[in-house]
Amino acid sequence: MKNFRFKNPTDIRFGTGRLDVELHDAVSHFGSRVLFVYGGHSIKKSGLYDTVKGLLADLQLTELPGIEPNPKIASIREGQKLVKDNDVEVVLAVGGGSVIDAAKVIASAKFYDGDPWDLVKDRGVTRHKLPQLPVVDILTLAATGSEMNSGSVISNPETHEKLGTNGPNTPAVSFLDPTLTYTVPHRQTAAGSMDIFSHLLEQYFDRSKNNDASKGMMEGLMRTVIKWAPIAVKEPDNFDARANLMWSATMALNGVMSVANENGWTVHSLEHELSAYYDITHGVGLGILTPRWMEYALTKDSTTAEMFARFGRHVWDLEGDETYAVAQAAIDETFDWIQHLGFPMTLPEVGIADERHFDAMATAAVANARLETRAYVPLSEEDVKAIYQAAMTDGLTA
Amino acid sequence: MKNFRFKNPTDIRFGTGRLDVELHDAVSHFGSRVLFVYGGHSIKKSGLYDTVKGLLADLQLTELPGIEPNPKIASIREGQKLVKDNDVEVVLAVGGGSVIDAAKVIASAKFYDGDPWDLVKDRGVTRHKLPQLPVVDILTLAATGSEMNSGSVISNPETHEKLGTNGPNTPAVSFLDPTLTYTVPHRQTAAGSMDIFSHLLEQYFDRSKNNDASKGMMEGLMRTVIKWAPIAVKEPDNFDARANLMWSATMALNGVMSVANENGWTVHSLEHELSAYYDITHGVGLGILTPRWMEYALTKDSTTAEMFARFGRHVWDLEGDETYAVAQAAIDETFDWIQHLGFPMTLPEVGIADERHFDAMATAAVANARLETRAYVPLSEEDVKAIYQAAMTDGLTA
Repeated sequence: MKNFRFKNPTDIRFGTGRLDVELHDAVSHFGSRVLFVYGGHSIKKSGLYDTVKGLLADLQLTELPGIEPNPKIASIREGQKLVKDNDVEVVLAVGGGSVIDAAKVIASAKFYDGDPWDLVKDRGVTRHKLPQLPVVDILTLAATGSEMNSGSVISNPETHEKLGTNGPNTPAVSFLDPTLTYTVPHRQTAAGSMDIFSHLLEQYFDRSKNNDASKGMMEGLMRTVIKWAPIAVKEPDNFDARANLMWSATMALNGVMSVANENGWTVHSLEHELSAYYDITHGVGLGILTPRWMEYALTKDSTTAEMFARFGRHVWDLEGDETYAVAQAAIDETFDWIQHLGFPMTLPEVGIADERHFDAMATAAVANARLETRAYVPLSEEDVKAIYQAAMTDGLTA
Repeated sequence: MKNFRFKNPTDIRFGTGRLDVELHDAVSHFGSRVLFVYGGHSIKKSGLYDTVKGLLADLQLTELPGIEPNPKIASIREGQKLVKDNDVEVVLAVGGGSVIDAAKVIASAKFYDGDPWDLVKDRGVTRHKLPQLPVVDILTLAATGSEMNSGSVISNPETHEKLGTNGPNTPAVSFLDPTLTYTVPHRQTAAGSMDIFSHLLEQYFDRSKNNDASKGMMEGLMRTVIKWAPIAVKEPDNFDARANLMWSATMALNGVMSVANENGWTVHSLEHELSAYYDITHGVGLGILTPRWMEYALTKDSTTAEMFARFGRHVWDLEGDETYAVAQAAIDETFDWIQHLGFPMTLPEVGIADERHFDAMATAAVANARLETRAYVPLSEEDVKAIYQAAMTDGLTA
């Protein structure tokens, strides 16, 4: 096991009925001048917008609506102006990962006089030298884990860049009420669940040896997502389904699972190029690519087969002594589970009819994520292209 | 799933070679007047005492040696005087759970003018109203999890009480270097591992419904302890064994595993009376009682059998469809694993030759832990006595 440092002071308030009692104090503890960041009309439709406004009526709320699903730098710039002009003391984010991502960068941008894109472009180097306003959030989607980590992904349409940046702090307080996700449509529930599952998978398939404590916890969380995601898709107001997904999403990416890990993230980087060239949902892209990556990765060497077999036995409850057979069965189970969540399972089904961008996408994926040196199974541009090609046809090739 | 609140800001520094680089700053960040709390001669023998003194030579260290395996209130009183007299700014604890337990209460006692037993006696009610000095610790034993929680257990020989107390804060910084546990003797390694396993088991067998995220993570940690404890016992300097046990111990009791749980701790309360009446090691008592409790609990109802079968399948990798058979096999596996760690498995083997205290012990256990109402499987005094009696003879009764 490698050395690691872990610290995560986010104050999690999980469950129903907490906002009425706790939201006001959680926010006003940091001050009375608040930037209220949110997305579109969904929180107005659900009534959450009115609830928040009512509970914080005595505070000075400045609103920043319109945060996009992939938050754009323009919103951050707008937020920067607002926090400076109003001398904001605390940022309140109400929404999914994108809204919280944006809030965290704005919380740094108050203390930076230049263009906030600088704070993204350098991956957070400058942010770590700056103070950061406290962020309080109310989560409305179980997916990214942004509610308990310091990361943000911000897009810059002018430069065609979508980059991750880390700040010095995780959110100060996160309200996680599973009932606020009852209104998430089934397709988005499936995509969010796929995102959670993929976060776990990316950290699970790593090159560290004997990191069993982390791997064991991830296996438990993966079983939890496998069990409850289909239920949440079918029964949107199943509390236990929503609660298990919500807490699994948070735990998957709050740093606990990645301690002592040694790897880069492969499927996310492959999907990143897919989203960059075509306008498809992140979780849908992950659903299509994940089993294809698994199939491609398995054939490489026996250490990998052992790891996939472990995945089969502890995540999919597969039995049998033949390592390679269990490993292959685990991939089949993964494919079937994703398909049963209602995902399209080929690239043509999401409108990618030909391979004309695959060379460029493969080049970018390998370069950006250093897949030839950092990936669990090292991948060349040819390898990546083959994975994209496999996703053009139905089912698995084996 | 029930509502829960979770916050744990302890800064974990895990791995080798960190003290030389990080200890001085971690301590002096809080001030230069330090209370250095430790136990007996083991840290002097290992050289850790000299290392710490050398690294902190420019700080004003006041020493409080002699913290006992079950820390006594006399040590806390001594510590209270020292932190007040020297206007101490930070407490440095070097040792196992007992030393860290003592340090946390002393850290509160600086701000209390009465007898610190008051701070234990009221289970921490007063401590939560007081400030608390920051505690930095260097852990030398994987067992109690005190390095990342706010709890302490303090004994008062005058009143024959041994009570738990919680403070407002977890340790500020905890150094977890697995190599510092290489010198832990095999018997204490086994007892520490049993303590970790039992912490997980007590939280796992609970009455919450559908708390799969927590249960899944605990299953992973239990598998980790099962795998690595026997290796650590046989190969004391196996880094991965020591590292997995150390991190599992911390994760088992830092609050992550208990979120949304609904239960009291049964086996710990049964063992508590054993330790109170006879001078036996906590982990050894847990080893003897755990399989007997399991066997007694299993016969009660079918929900319990389902839970034990789940434990068998996900923790012991047992196969088979017959719930009750898998449940029973899981108990056998648990018994064998404990026995193979080198534990005595009956009460007579640890010097308890007769049953004369069993009535009083059963009465106290049921009353102290409210076992008739709060336990996973409710237990009467008769039930508890039967479990003690079962531990008088070899093997399991089934």
